[in-house]
Amino acid sequence: MTALDEVSRPGRVAEPDEAISLEELALAARNHALPLEALRYDVTPVGLHYLLIHYDIPDLDADRHTLTIDGRVERPLTLDLAALRERPRVTRRVTLECAGNGRALLTPRPVSQPWLSEAVGTAEWTGTPLAPLLREAGVGPDAVDVVFTGADHGIERGIEQDYQRGLPVSEALRDEVLLAYEMNGVPLLPQHGAPLRLVVPGWYGMAHVKWLTRISVLDREFDGYQNAVAYRVRTDADDPGVPVTRIEPRALLQPPGFPDFMSRTRVVRPGPCTVEGRAWSGHAPVTGVEVTTDGGATWVPAELAPARPGQAAASGEAEAVDDRWAWRRWRYEWTATPGRYTLSARATDASGRVQPIEQPWNRGGFANNLVQRVEVLVAAE
Amino acid sequence: MTALDEVSRPGRVAEPDEAISLEELALAARNHALPLEALRYDVTPVGLHYLLIHYDIPDLDADRHTLTIDGRVERPLTLDLAALRERPRVTRRVTLECAGNGRALLTPRPVSQPWLSEAVGTAEWTGTPLAPLLREAGVGPDAVDVVFTGADHGIERGIEQDYQRGLPVSEALRDEVLLAYEMNGVPLLPQHGAPLRLVVPGWYGMAHVKWLTRISVLDREFDGYQNAVAYRVRTDADDPGVPVTRIEPRALLQPPGFPDFMSRTRVVRPGPCTVEGRAWSGHAPVTGVEVTTDGGATWVPAELAPARPGQAAASGEAEAVDDRWAWRRWRYEWTATPGRYTLSARATDASGRVQPIEQPWNRGGFANNLVQRVEVLVAAE
Repeated sequence: MTALDEVSRPGRVAEPDEAISLEELALAARNHALPLEALRYDVTPVGLHYLLIHYDIPDLDADRHTLTIDGRVERPLTLDLAALRERPRVTRRVTLECAGNGRALLTPRPVSQPWLSEAVGTAEWTGTPLAPLLREAGVGPDAVDVVFTGADHGIERGIEQDYQRGLPVSEALRDEVLLAYEMNGVPLLPQHGAPLRLVVPGWYGMAHVKWLTRISVLDREFDGYQNAVAYRVRTDADDPGVPVTRIEPRALLQPPGFPDFMSRTRVVRPGPCTVEGRAWSGHAPVTGVEVTTDGGATWVPAELAPARPGQAAASGEAEAVDDRWAWRRWRYEWTATPGRYTLSARATDASGRVQPIEQPWNRGGFANNLVQRVEVLVAAE
Repeated sequence: MTALDEVSRPGRVAEPDEAISLEELALAARNHALPLEALRYDVTPVGLHYLLIHYDIPDLDADRHTLTIDGRVERPLTLDLAALRERPRVTRRVTLECAGNGRALLTPRPVSQPWLSEAVGTAEWTGTPLAPLLREAGVGPDAVDVVFTGADHGIERGIEQDYQRGLPVSEALRDEVLLAYEMNGVPLLPQHGAPLRLVVPGWYGMAHVKWLTRISVLDREFDGYQNAVAYRVRTDADDPGVPVTRIEPRALLQPPGFPDFMSRTRVVRPGPCTVEGRAWSGHAPVTGVEVTTDGGATWVPAELAPARPGQAAASGEAEAVDDRWAWRRWRYEWTATPGRYTLSARATDASGRVQPIEQPWNRGGFANNLVQRVEVLVAAE
């Protein structure tokens, strides 16, 4: 055992009776979730978007930052921020979700960042499309993966690393992929990848590499830690598993009424009550949301907002903002009568995927899109 | 037992072997802390400042929002935001800390928002001083407390309430107290109290009422929940206790080197290593910070930055910003040699208060300024 192994232990699953540790709590305090009432905003206000930072937020100087494109390309490139800002500018409204969202609700619980259901957010990302840059560099015909390197440095399960994540070249060349330098109309904040990050609409957050310094084209599959070890759906430690990729469908419900401070249980007055929220999928457009107010015994369809609401861009862009990869609002008009209720919603997308009502367990705790449960007490004053 | 009591239970202290519950975890996911590397910033970037929201973030319309000043005043007033913005404008750099900071590190642990050490942040708050407004309203000679009401509504330990907190009239009339409508040069974000909040430099966060709707002058001590029940330092449930008021001195250390993802233990290379951080107190200026690299066996003085660094205001104010109530930077040059270390820092202020090295336990888990412990492995590559 090396000295580094002493402070960086292998991944594991909690014992059946093992509660949340102080290590998991420390991650929960750093990496914050969307407060569920913030589902009310089409675009998540700054500071309420979820955050997952593997190591430390790096301290980068935007004026001296450069991006290098190299590997299996004909013409390696190095660009500074000014050069990137001179290129075509695009804004997309994109919902991002952490691949580990829902992990702490799994039984048994994989021990890592202990997300409940709220590791999500929607922002307007402004930047320049990646594909034309890769074409200018001249991606070789033997290209397989494109590796994105961030400036955040740390150690994880014994491996010291800059955060690096590979993407198949076909995904990297999609029109929608952006090198983003603004979020919601202002320069990226340090915690969201300033001065430059990747945005891969439809994919879980691990693909959207922050504090981007290098893009390298490989003639093989990337076998770095975040692709080959972490972010794989495995049944057990020996299973090679499959990579985590696109976001599974999920609906979240904006809890109605008002909360109890400690339990976060909701109190709702008897009478008409709008049950509403957001739904999204990285595979295909959301085609339906169903709601239950009786803990899953019966499901009724919710009303889905139009796919392209044509809202003004929060970023101040003159053009309509592409929101194909953003969440959609849904609502259901409920008549609340006194009693205790468990409310849930489940999303279906055009690929036929439906949110499960049994947990989709895997050893890393990834892509757990089990339906959310919102506990409600309907009571008069 | 009423229906509301079912979902809103009394305060309690965890059993000796009771780990963090899912309820505590849910609060940790909502109410985020300062990532410790963000101690590098004089003014905390938006989204990294700590947040404690008792109920839900309210959905308020700045254009229709009004503030009412009433109670024991000669001339009750109602003002909108435009009227407040026309009044004298002041910016102050203020460090805010949650009164519950450090709670989850107490033994036994009071069950509430489970803060570790990082519920703090420093912002530039811009607004108009409160005292002249109270004088215009004509505070009666029999005034005792001033009650500030926020628009956030919920239930806490069985009591349904809008968040309300009283301040002694002498504190409310201090020159430094602000009605703030901007933070770091932009309008308040929803989670920080938009469109209007109170800022009471030197006091713990519970006094800085967000989403401010009403200021009422009383001829008696305010006996509402947040003053008479919560936010009191008590030895046990029967102790009437004393109110939580000003921030106790604390130093926090910006963890050196780089972290392990899961344990957050730091890895530092052998050689010169700057150990630095911030220190503050709400009672009096910080006069000294001491550092230990041997788990508290010996303490050595750190170098304190000048009290008034004269930094340019982040808010873009032309005038120098008052930073008497902001944290001060400190540093200590360490020579790291291979091994395991526990680093800590402790602050002393001009009132003679020193950070304790034994936990200052109380039943609500308030004002726990026990010294932070940062675990470090010094190892070559």
